[in-house]
Amino acid sequence: MSVLECNNVTAEEIKNFDKKYNLHSWSAQGSLNPQVIEKAEGIYFWDSEGKRYFDMSSQLVNLNVGHGNKKIIGAIKDQADKMPFMGPAYAVDVRSILAQKVIEKAPDNMGKVFFTLGGADSNENAIKIAKMFTGRNKIFSRYRSYHGASYGAANLTGEPRRYTCEPGIPGFVKFFDPYIYRAGIEFKSEEAASKYYVDKLREQIIYEGEESVAAIFLETVTGSNGVIIPPKGYLKGIREICDEFGILMVCDEVMTGFGRTGEWFACNNWDVKPDLITFAKGITCGYVPLGGVLVDKKISEYFDNNTLMCGLTYNAHPLSCAAGIATLEVYEEEKLVENSKDLGKILGKLLEDIKEKHPSVGDVRYIGLFSAVELVKDKVTREALVPYGKDPEKIMPRIIGMLKEKGFSTYSHENNIMIAPPLTITEAELREAIGIFDKVMCFVDEYIKK
Amino acid sequence: MSVLECNNVTAEEIKNFDKKYNLHSWSAQGSLNPQVIEKAEGIYFWDSEGKRYFDMSSQLVNLNVGHGNKKIIGAIKDQADKMPFMGPAYAVDVRSILAQKVIEKAPDNMGKVFFTLGGADSNENAIKIAKMFTGRNKIFSRYRSYHGASYGAANLTGEPRRYTCEPGIPGFVKFFDPYIYRAGIEFKSEEAASKYYVDKLREQIIYEGEESVAAIFLETVTGSNGVIIPPKGYLKGIREICDEFGILMVCDEVMTGFGRTGEWFACNNWDVKPDLITFAKGITCGYVPLGGVLVDKKISEYFDNNTLMCGLTYNAHPLSCAAGIATLEVYEEEKLVENSKDLGKILGKLLEDIKEKHPSVGDVRYIGLFSAVELVKDKVTREALVPYGKDPEKIMPRIIGMLKEKGFSTYSHENNIMIAPPLTITEAELREAIGIFDKVMCFVDEYIKK
Repeated sequence: MSVLECNNVTAEEIKNFDKKYNLHSWSAQGSLNPQVIEKAEGIYFWDSEGKRYFDMSSQLVNLNVGHGNKKIIGAIKDQADKMPFMGPAYAVDVRSILAQKVIEKAPDNMGKVFFTLGGADSNENAIKIAKMFTGRNKIFSRYRSYHGASYGAANLTGEPRRYTCEPGIPGFVKFFDPYIYRAGIEFKSEEAASKYYVDKLREQIIYEGEESVAAIFLETVTGSNGVIIPPKGYLKGIREICDEFGILMVCDEVMTGFGRTGEWFACNNWDVKPDLITFAKGITCGYVPLGGVLVDKKISEYFDNNTLMCGLTYNAHPLSCAAGIATLEVYEEEKLVENSKDLGKILGKLLEDIKEKHPSVGDVRYIGLFSAVELVKDKVTREALVPYGKDPEKIMPRIIGMLKEKGFSTYSHENNIMIAPPLTITEAELREAIGIFDKVMCFVDEYIKK
Repeated sequence: MSVLECNNVTAEEIKNFDKKYNLHSWSAQGSLNPQVIEKAEGIYFWDSEGKRYFDMSSQLVNLNVGHGNKKIIGAIKDQADKMPFMGPAYAVDVRSILAQKVIEKAPDNMGKVFFTLGGADSNENAIKIAKMFTGRNKIFSRYRSYHGASYGAANLTGEPRRYTCEPGIPGFVKFFDPYIYRAGIEFKSEEAASKYYVDKLREQIIYEGEESVAAIFLETVTGSNGVIIPPKGYLKGIREICDEFGILMVCDEVMTGFGRTGEWFACNNWDVKPDLITFAKGITCGYVPLGGVLVDKKISEYFDNNTLMCGLTYNAHPLSCAAGIATLEVYEEEKLVENSKDLGKILGKLLEDIKEKHPSVGDVRYIGLFSAVELVKDKVTREALVPYGKDPEKIMPRIIGMLKEKGFSTYSHENNIMIAPPLTITEAELREAIGIFDKVMCFVDEYIKK
């Protein structure tokens, strides 16, 4: 079948070929019944039966600009005509210009960027850069975290998706997140919580040997594992520990970078400057794969005279870089970072109403257009709707299915439902979508009564 | 600066921005002076001063179809208009069709494909699949090998580019390649060499505990580490060991797949069917990043009822899949696999002449349009031109520089020079390029006299 013939394939054939030949992520394949998607525009996509969905997770929290953005598509087409590929050793216009533009948007301590293909890749390279620069070996990261599925990134990851990459890499150490809703402690204030978690981390670093620790990795705001927002003072506290012991602070902004939290980078919300920032998703919104590592000036200078032992064939891919330049322009022209901040306030109010109304909603956490709804069996005991790592009755997929049935597409993780629409959404659209969510939560309320 | 403004940037600015903001692979950045590339077509590319180069390494052995292929560019542009991205959970026409086409080209034991973004990614996922399927932990791979730079792929890798990912992952074991030129043994025949290396590997597996070994990884033909071609019977011998002990045979065909050796996959040259094949580069020739893992039917069936713990946001990216479908059509329409086989014979003759003529050329190894020239200080003792992992006088970069000066672009690794032009090259072009190479070898002959 040729490229042109793709247009003549029926939805049934597409689905059958898919089931016959493709392996899908994170699934037992026999139970899959993949939807065929034929059209996508703005905050919506349509299945092959013409049913429309609000894309309330921006696919995998990557489509910040929404589907079908004409400017980015135009940039891809122009670059395809001009030079789709050139090896990473060479200087190419779009490669230079995107690097300059990303540095311009980043915290002002950043000197250079190493481009990769995606988030996992970015974290892999950040581990290596931290080890090379410090000459140290141990890497700290958190239990409720996801940093990618390749070996290094999976060993950073704290949740069960890392298990396949065990026995683990020597020297990777996990610590607890400031997950206040399930802290098991009543804190008097956000600041008190921060002090507790930062002090415990400092203690753990000393137990591990502070001079052996190369880096502390953290999602600035934890993503898939429940949109855990750092309490006031937490990130500054981590920064201080890093400065005290000569440890690099690495913020994984794969999900949170490029406007998701109402700032260009989430760390700006707390005025903290990490030594390394890893990014992907929002830089091109996935129109072409791209990721990268932003590197503090003192580190980039170190590599003037020391070999950077990192590399990949598609480093700073020209097609990806062209898409990246256009994407950054879209953020600016459409004021998407500002929209994320403004609509984030409305989203927050709507979610608080939902929490108040529904016995099954234990907690809602939100910043910009990045939010999660945490479901419980009991609001008082906070017992999770499904236990950690288990869901034998497939309750969460059933809730996601119900939402989808009503035209609200998103995904869940453990007992959390992600709500993170494209930053292009309007207030009216947001209210309409959350209205659907509200109705489905009534079913969940019924379920927990049983 | 906007996308359009890229056209108004001078070569000087592109170079300055590049040096200021980009981190380059495998380099100390201070010494770099990246060439600015503004045009590429077929087997040539041009720098900003208008100088033309034969691309005799197909960039990083990925541009099998050469630069600027109109059919692939057209497919990218069409898909960009239609649907540049859709999450990996969904069925999309190009995703289904490319999977079907790749399975059609692969050895007939292959059932399904898991798409990734590049070669390292593919190897990362193959490790995980092998561990999940076998329930075993140890992974064998070879010393003279490169499988990628992320943690898992780097731990497969045998050469120094793995050192940054150490301390290593528990259970990764290295064995020797059938590198006959430096075996230290005189073998009576290729078959005798194969028997020796296969028997030694079998012995090593038993010492490691045969029931703990999940997989044996090997580049079907070793790539960057010197185009080491398996002697007759070697791969069949490995296949037999794998069958005997229930170990998966994993062929890394990132460089060799898609026609490079004169067959669709290099393993076809020896009629061997691996359990997993990892690929990347040639599937799209790098026009859009794409890689994948081909999975034997018994393994894909296992994952009908067992969760595949693999995943990435850009799994089976639609833009990449569209480029892949077009690329496979180009191979067929332009008969590139056949051309690789036919011209490979001529390349072999030309290289044998060079070996005979030049005292500095110790060995030449070639299959299809994949070849390496191994440089020595002394043809009799076979002393390498530069010792392993060291080149303080920068001899190899100086030779690569001389070649480039004369319009022949390629790269070296240790004391080997890669020659692997686009499969679209004509006989006349090949002879002209090898003529340049021949001249530069005269300088190397002079150098070793000193």
